[in-house]
Amino acid sequence: MDKLPKIVIVGGGFGGLYAAFTLHKKPVDVILVDRRNHHLFQPFLYQVATAGLSPGNISQPIRHILSRSPNIRVLLAEATEVDPERRQLHLADAQIPYDTLILATGASHSYFGHEEWKPFAPGLKDIEDAVEIRRRILLAFEAAERELDEARRKALLSFVVIGAGPTGVELAGALVEIAQHTLAHDFKSINPAQARIILLEAAPRILPTFAESLGQAATQYLTKRGVEVRTQTAVTRISSGLVEAGSQRFPAQTILWAAGVAASPLARTLKVPLDKAGRVLVHPDLTIPGHPDVFVIGDIAAFHHQGNKPLPGMAPVAIQMGRHAACNILRKIQGQETLPFHYRDKGMMATIGRNAAVAEIGPFRFTGFPAWVVWLWAHIFFLIGFRNRLMVMIEWLWAYVTFSRGVRLITGDTTLASRRSSSDRPN
Amino acid sequence: MDKLPKIVIVGGGFGGLYAAFTLHKKPVDVILVDRRNHHLFQPFLYQVATAGLSPGNISQPIRHILSRSPNIRVLLAEATEVDPERRQLHLADAQIPYDTLILATGASHSYFGHEEWKPFAPGLKDIEDAVEIRRRILLAFEAAERELDEARRKALLSFVVIGAGPTGVELAGALVEIAQHTLAHDFKSINPAQARIILLEAAPRILPTFAESLGQAATQYLTKRGVEVRTQTAVTRISSGLVEAGSQRFPAQTILWAAGVAASPLARTLKVPLDKAGRVLVHPDLTIPGHPDVFVIGDIAAFHHQGNKPLPGMAPVAIQMGRHAACNILRKIQGQETLPFHYRDKGMMATIGRNAAVAEIGPFRFTGFPAWVVWLWAHIFFLIGFRNRLMVMIEWLWAYVTFSRGVRLITGDTTLASRRSSSDRPN
Repeated sequence: MDKLPKIVIVGGGFGGLYAAFTLHKKPVDVILVDRRNHHLFQPFLYQVATAGLSPGNISQPIRHILSRSPNIRVLLAEATEVDPERRQLHLADAQIPYDTLILATGASHSYFGHEEWKPFAPGLKDIEDAVEIRRRILLAFEAAERELDEARRKALLSFVVIGAGPTGVELAGALVEIAQHTLAHDFKSINPAQARIILLEAAPRILPTFAESLGQAATQYLTKRGVEVRTQTAVTRISSGLVEAGSQRFPAQTILWAAGVAASPLARTLKVPLDKAGRVLVHPDLTIPGHPDVFVIGDIAAFHHQGNKPLPGMAPVAIQMGRHAACNILRKIQGQETLPFHYRDKGMMATIGRNAAVAEIGPFRFTGFPAWVVWLWAHIFFLIGFRNRLMVMIEWLWAYVTFSRGVRLITGDTTLASRRSSSDRPN
Repeated sequence: MDKLPKIVIVGGGFGGLYAAFTLHKKPVDVILVDRRNHHLFQPFLYQVATAGLSPGNISQPIRHILSRSPNIRVLLAEATEVDPERRQLHLADAQIPYDTLILATGASHSYFGHEEWKPFAPGLKDIEDAVEIRRRILLAFEAAERELDEARRKALLSFVVIGAGPTGVELAGALVEIAQHTLAHDFKSINPAQARIILLEAAPRILPTFAESLGQAATQYLTKRGVEVRTQTAVTRISSGLVEAGSQRFPAQTILWAAGVAASPLARTLKVPLDKAGRVLVHPDLTIPGHPDVFVIGDIAAFHHQGNKPLPGMAPVAIQMGRHAACNILRKIQGQETLPFHYRDKGMMATIGRNAAVAEIGPFRFTGFPAWVVWLWAHIFFLIGFRNRLMVMIEWLWAYVTFSRGVRLITGDTTLASRRSSSDRPN
């Protein structure tokens, strides 16, 4: 038994998990290391941030997902460094030797060198972030209800979302629903529907990675619902309650960051070339230069697909890479050569809110209600765990019929004055 | 409009909320102040602590519950002091004048003068507590999976619950289910079923407020399921990973406090006589000595029912007191005399786990499956919000059929080393 090749997977996101699925009951000894006990369905994270779903609805214990794989062990631990020379993964308090490593630790947000913006404009990458954003959104309305000063009240009811990729669009769409429907009848002094939701994007159009017609459709949906969409507006400064873009000033109590991503810092410890976002430039077979026993997959990998831009950081890419890396490992064990990775484009989609989304799947482009239905089913299909699927569908059916949101819970500090960064406030 | 009597209710628990319901559309101007935005269904808090329900399932925004009451405003604010002479409620940053005050701020846990025990043995009173306890329970199993030292592993798999009232019994019952069923197949190095769950009680029997036969039945259920029940065992010292009761030592990583309660510190600011637990000794009509315009209800009140022990701190008492205080206020406005409060005993119950509970309702005493069904329906009936009822029923049906628990989520710090108190880790 001890002679089986030892595969260490770091990260239990889509990439790491699908690599593990592919190694299920194969003649290898697998350890999956994650600093969280749960797999997180990141595409629904904005729903937790906007009080639509509970954290428990979009997460599942990694240990439980893999409980039927006798050859896979799950370890809750933080990896601090990879030593590819000695073939060791360093944890905070131990080392794990490996024969083959799969690095799948994903990405976090990047403030483009302005780390000082972080406390004022939290990003959305984990449950803690989502609960902190939920807290800020709900507290802003509560504080506005008590505020007597008109300018201050306006700032409390202003929400700026920076970055109009799918996450920014989804956040802005959900915010406008909260203001106009969910909270519409709950306040006595303010009218939540007067909230101002501003979506800022530095590029000439929103959803810049999508087809141009879809970006236009999304702009129309958002504008019609009341979101102020400002393209070609690059943020130059963020301070407490104020976003500046050149000479433009946007006073807003609540500022959300959905702009940049940076690869997990573990990438740097490999000591191989990285791209500007800190992602590892991988070989076509997903290994790294000089170390055919190290595979890098998912958001932490920069894979240049047929000479084009690197593949985007999204679940279908990570899933296919995870499967492919595992297959290549099994091929090597059988003495076969590794195969280059080819991404089968499953399309991409973003939702604007109820009954509205944009989607491109192969040559087809959908907008509006059909796109929304496609978005809904595609996402529920990939959500792990039958129970989670069931609960999410019920929450949504409920929200769809009643316009309400189930998880309007403020936890932690209930004073707005606090300016601690999101990392200080666990869920 | 401004001439309507101004009623201020402090606290949106069962007492405050049912007082507000009774004042719905009556000729009074009501402000309900709570430092949380949500009403919390405390009887299910142990379910959040043991990963069975999400925080969102057992909480509902107070503002939303009361949104159809045009004469009731809800304020998210922390009350710091009552000034009964000037008829003012002090908030951190403002004062609210009142004509009549209803104080319903409940109770928290008491360590009987041993505040230094708190970081080692968190209690269970709010969502933050529950999420912290969930974190500790799940992390203990994770750490045990990695631990090589036998004694240390045993301590990681030992759980001590201090106090065998309903909450302690429910926590112990849920812990044994987690160990023997939920986690049974998820670990490779440890057998979670070998976890030791110890329930300590200083009194001669568990559930001391229940009929003796029910305490005995509960002891039998717990013992049969594998809980070590130790009565007449008064804790004398708690330190990191160790509970001492005289010469007895219980090494355990996870220690939960379910023993004492202390009334909200707001009681002291009234400057009227309090009992040993800090509760306000109220008149038969629920007002306080010297201030017929201040009503004190729920867990913060000590009401001596027909010369007997004060009524226990539980939801039916708070609900009836809330209604009664509101009715007395309306009577006074109409020039009538206030009426003395009479508690209609609805019985009490505690669940041990699946298919087992104990309940006494009037002259009837139930145990086992019938008591469990009574417990289930009585609790779901009082859970506020149809959506929450639906979700909880589905979660439970799911858990009942599969033996799994839906919300096995560790958030916040994932290192056991941390010893911060629960108040530092918001949900």
